[in-house]
Amino acid sequence: MPEFRKEPVTGRWVIVSTDRAKRPRDFIRTQVVVQKKGICPFCPGNENRTPPEILAFRAHGGPNQPGWTTRVIPNKFPALRVEGDFDREPDGLYDRMNGIGAHEVIIDCPEHIASLGETTDTNTANVFWAFRERLADLKNDVRLKYTLLFKNHGEPAGASIEHSHSQLIALPIIPMAVQEELDGSRRYFDLHDRCVFCDIIRQERRDGKRVVHEDEDVIVLAPYASRFPFELWILPRRHASHLEFAPAEIYRGLASTLGRLLRKIDRALECPAYNFVLHNGTMKETDSPSYHWHLEIIPRLTRVAGFEWGSGFYINPTTPEEAASFLRDTIA
Amino acid sequence: MPEFRKEPVTGRWVIVSTDRAKRPRDFIRTQVVVQKKGICPFCPGNENRTPPEILAFRAHGGPNQPGWTTRVIPNKFPALRVEGDFDREPDGLYDRMNGIGAHEVIIDCPEHIASLGETTDTNTANVFWAFRERLADLKNDVRLKYTLLFKNHGEPAGASIEHSHSQLIALPIIPMAVQEELDGSRRYFDLHDRCVFCDIIRQERRDGKRVVHEDEDVIVLAPYASRFPFELWILPRRHASHLEFAPAEIYRGLASTLGRLLRKIDRALECPAYNFVLHNGTMKETDSPSYHWHLEIIPRLTRVAGFEWGSGFYINPTTPEEAASFLRDTIA
Repeated sequence: MPEFRKEPVTGRWVIVSTDRAKRPRDFIRTQVVVQKKGICPFCPGNENRTPPEILAFRAHGGPNQPGWTTRVIPNKFPALRVEGDFDREPDGLYDRMNGIGAHEVIIDCPEHIASLGETTDTNTANVFWAFRERLADLKNDVRLKYTLLFKNHGEPAGASIEHSHSQLIALPIIPMAVQEELDGSRRYFDLHDRCVFCDIIRQERRDGKRVVHEDEDVIVLAPYASRFPFELWILPRRHASHLEFAPAEIYRGLASTLGRLLRKIDRALECPAYNFVLHNGTMKETDSPSYHWHLEIIPRLTRVAGFEWGSGFYINPTTPEEAASFLRDTIA
Repeated sequence: MPEFRKEPVTGRWVIVSTDRAKRPRDFIRTQVVVQKKGICPFCPGNENRTPPEILAFRAHGGPNQPGWTTRVIPNKFPALRVEGDFDREPDGLYDRMNGIGAHEVIIDCPEHIASLGETTDTNTANVFWAFRERLADLKNDVRLKYTLLFKNHGEPAGASIEHSHSQLIALPIIPMAVQEELDGSRRYFDLHDRCVFCDIIRQERRDGKRVVHEDEDVIVLAPYASRFPFELWILPRRHASHLEFAPAEIYRGLASTLGRLLRKIDRALECPAYNFVLHNGTMKETDSPSYHWHLEIIPRLTRVAGFEWGSGFYINPTTPEEAASFLRDTIA
């Protein structure tokens, strides 16, 4: 029997369709494999093929030279520009403003690999440390309200360059889905004086069936109202609204957990394309009792059909309980 | 210079990125071509391969026999079931309910074609007439609150069967994105005592640059804050909240406009996959002064990247002005 499930933060209903239940092998997908065609602009030695770096962690060498482990550069084809004045104007009944913001690329590691599952935990921790530094720096720009940090892995997930990288888009607005999550968790807090994500963690730890992994620092869940098969959330165990204020051990814990999880996903689902998105507190706040940062990972296993865009309504052919059980049993 | 534009109904901001501007030929896409492999369950003569029909328009023949022009059947692998009692129950802090609802398939025409652009206007009008009859019939089920009517055209858009068909999902809830549109148009109405869609039509007719087509009955727009390249909306010129109460001439006008538009899209964009979704009033209302039904068409030209799901925030590489101009100049 199919079932409606309500996501407790935003209130979104999802159909979890057990009749159409899909096992990992039933999904059509493109395997993401490293092809290494042509010259890679993200490989060491090709620093002159990218805009000058904004930030780099390096063992040796000067700026824009080899020797780095993680490197942050402006996007060569930015969707937004940092320069210019911030103008808002009406256009009849419409509103517009110029495209002020930042669009950066985080080159995860010097090796020409496609996935963070293939690098060391230390390297992955550096990537999150780069997120932290960029989040802190961009807060100095008072025009900006929210920073999106995300990864498109594999061409079906929107990646145009193969070499493992993440992206940052800093915006003068708070995106709608983020606002809905902030509002929803605020409503829950007003009602219960507790963080909804902390309550989710509490219940999931008791139930166990949707928990993929848990250690002292973080927990990995297949969320109750997963929109997509094998959707996964990594949350810090202790309440925290902003990644950038997390203690150093969280970065290490997050890195090793993410690495293990990506290796499990690659093994269980045959190297699928995936996206991850950091859900973080806003730039104006430093600490919120109602919001809880987390990383959402979505393997691209199904085609998003039209009605899902038209309605914000999702049908998920794999229960999160099955997904969690399958991934728990997969060797990393 | 990239630009933020605000969608006046929901308040969603979109980046229209003119720097990354893409012309129709720049998009990677799969051409949707009819392959006709194996036996098609939707072709006349194979009626016994589908569940028994719910509705059919036919020139001759009995139920579940050839002779029909448009045929409505239950989905063989439904995401929801009509049978059973409607149970809601808590699951700790979560909410769930059983998957009551309807999931139907509208087989658009007897010919084994992939697109409504290839059939006659009379046939397409029949498809909308079938939408109308199903909408009216499903209103008798008091458990249901909203009916989604949509089409997935081509495999990249989520179609699993090639023969031209549409789908219907009737739900005991109002989907979140639909609710946002209803709420947004209501807020506008409360402020101005006018329908926001009527105001959009008024402004677009005066401006002209985002109008693709216009006749006595309907208008086709590339919306100001298009989320996707070549996103198109067909709206009735005169205010109406529900398709099912439209006068007969609207169905004819809608059918001939949609047919022409799909032929233009096929010619301009080389037969892309696309989705369309009917945005309609709710099942409990019969007439709303603030809501205005319309059909949203989204050609699948770009990969939706991860951050778009994480944020509800879209970057569109083609301005609606360019898209409209290009389609105006394309022969149907």
